[in-house]
Amino acid sequence: MAAPVFIAGDWGTSNLRLSLVDADGAVLDSRTGPGAAAVPAGGFPDTVRGLLADWDAAHGRLPLLLCGMVGSTLGWVEVPYAAAPAGATEIAGYLHRIDLDGRPVYIAPGVKGTNLQGAPDVMRGEETQVLGALITHPGLATGDHLLCLPGTHSKWVDLSDGRITGFTTAMSGEIYALLSKHSTLARGAADWDGTPDAGFRQGLARVAEAGADVLHLLFETRARQMAGLLSPKDALGFLSGLVIGGDVAATLARHRALGRPAPTRVVLVGAPALNALYTLALASHGVAALALNGAEQSTAGLLAYFRRL
Amino acid sequence: MAAPVFIAGDWGTSNLRLSLVDADGAVLDSRTGPGAAAVPAGGFPDTVRGLLADWDAAHGRLPLLLCGMVGSTLGWVEVPYAAAPAGATEIAGYLHRIDLDGRPVYIAPGVKGTNLQGAPDVMRGEETQVLGALITHPGLATGDHLLCLPGTHSKWVDLSDGRITGFTTAMSGEIYALLSKHSTLARGAADWDGTPDAGFRQGLARVAEAGADVLHLLFETRARQMAGLLSPKDALGFLSGLVIGGDVAATLARHRALGRPAPTRVVLVGAPALNALYTLALASHGVAALALNGAEQSTAGLLAYFRRL
Repeated sequence: MAAPVFIAGDWGTSNLRLSLVDADGAVLDSRTGPGAAAVPAGGFPDTVRGLLADWDAAHGRLPLLLCGMVGSTLGWVEVPYAAAPAGATEIAGYLHRIDLDGRPVYIAPGVKGTNLQGAPDVMRGEETQVLGALITHPGLATGDHLLCLPGTHSKWVDLSDGRITGFTTAMSGEIYALLSKHSTLARGAADWDGTPDAGFRQGLARVAEAGADVLHLLFETRARQMAGLLSPKDALGFLSGLVIGGDVAATLARHRALGRPAPTRVVLVGAPALNALYTLALASHGVAALALNGAEQSTAGLLAYFRRL
Repeated sequence: MAAPVFIAGDWGTSNLRLSLVDADGAVLDSRTGPGAAAVPAGGFPDTVRGLLADWDAAHGRLPLLLCGMVGSTLGWVEVPYAAAPAGATEIAGYLHRIDLDGRPVYIAPGVKGTNLQGAPDVMRGEETQVLGALITHPGLATGDHLLCLPGTHSKWVDLSDGRITGFTTAMSGEIYALLSKHSTLARGAADWDGTPDAGFRQGLARVAEAGADVLHLLFETRARQMAGLLSPKDALGFLSGLVIGGDVAATLARHRALGRPAPTRVVLVGAPALNALYTLALASHGVAALALNGAEQSTAGLLAYFRRL
């Protein structure tokens, strides 16, 4: 077994994933822990000590590199944002170092920039996945690329010669979650397994036909059921298709409105199941997708920082 | 005091408002009761008996006319929808009669129709407010008018020669409620009193500047606060401005896309506070508003049914 050289941690609001990584970026072991929101104030050091005790016993106290909401006001320590345009070198320059029992802990900054509507926008965690994609897919390190990191707050990222130049947050994941859990829209709907089934495709087709105006399309989830045009088992998939289809359609429309060339390919960086939904939504607009596993890119991005220490 | 001739009840999911009404539609007394969702199955008769006991003692068992979700699967009895195009005569033809201890109870149907995206849509309660507006403002009974009934599920209604010809539901109220209560967007935001203040106007201005794409604008509620461009006291008003501004902008854009003439005036039928927000949103697009009190129109609409019994 290769020797681990550092520990990578993607510490979001709801989840922590820790990996023991070798010098080439291979993951030798991994485990999960509580999300940043579940750690009490001042509790980050003890949480880390507890989770790493056996790795420490086997390998010594390796450097720990963290990204995500752990660097926010809700996290261990608030790390200032790097300003776009920013690549690996600029972002690594903002790493915040903590010494914990002699172990160096580095927390990545987020990135602040301007969105396609000309307003301020922020990300925290996604920037590290973007940098990881540059390592695992070196073809992305030159030229212009459009990336999408689907999630609670999806990020559409412009990448130019290896640097994040701007990005736009879409509330797609949170809107779907709120409506599917709390809204009358979901009343009577069956559970949905998140796969691109007939209901999801029906939602995509509605957006393709009627436009990206999600506010005026969402109620169809209920009205179509009452009219016998949508089955309860397809309802949540349909709702997801409206939201994800609306996200993609509105993004492409915004590019057109700005006079930008239509993207021929979008690089998706996310969980495989979400990537599959966005791949289909992009295909419905004739746009190809390259789907990359978000967790793997996160580890690769933290390796990019490690190499710059 | 004029003699009451019937009791009007607008029985929605969350509220019941009962009014003692004379032959001219004047409200002699009124009271509130539990929303339809708070009445246990089979509990509607006893709820009505309890609420009306003293009015019955004074005036006898007057006819009770009800509209709203009381006629849905969640209500007293499910009353089938009238199909658009429909005016007072068509809708009154669908009244469902129940005899309760010798008192006639009439429950209004909702209306089903087609929305501006060509899909099925439904309303239950709003149709009665629209019919009421025809009585209180006879000028609306001829010609074409665009009405907006703002609420949890706002309804944009096309009225032609006194009949509802089509309507579109916007999820504006529910989206705002979900985001302001459950989302990270609202974290740290101060309470908002629902008046068209600086925050609300800033949200309207953003929509006017950046377009109706709410999915990609909502996150600005958080990012602008982090960038120091939006104060916590203005945050919820800003969010409401994005949603209501987005509703209005998308509706006007849809009219343009369908080649319809731009509306010069919208008739708002709703709670005064919501009417005030929509009036300002319409004004930001150069559209005038006539604001009518929704509760008063509801009583007038039930009077229209009473006169057709």
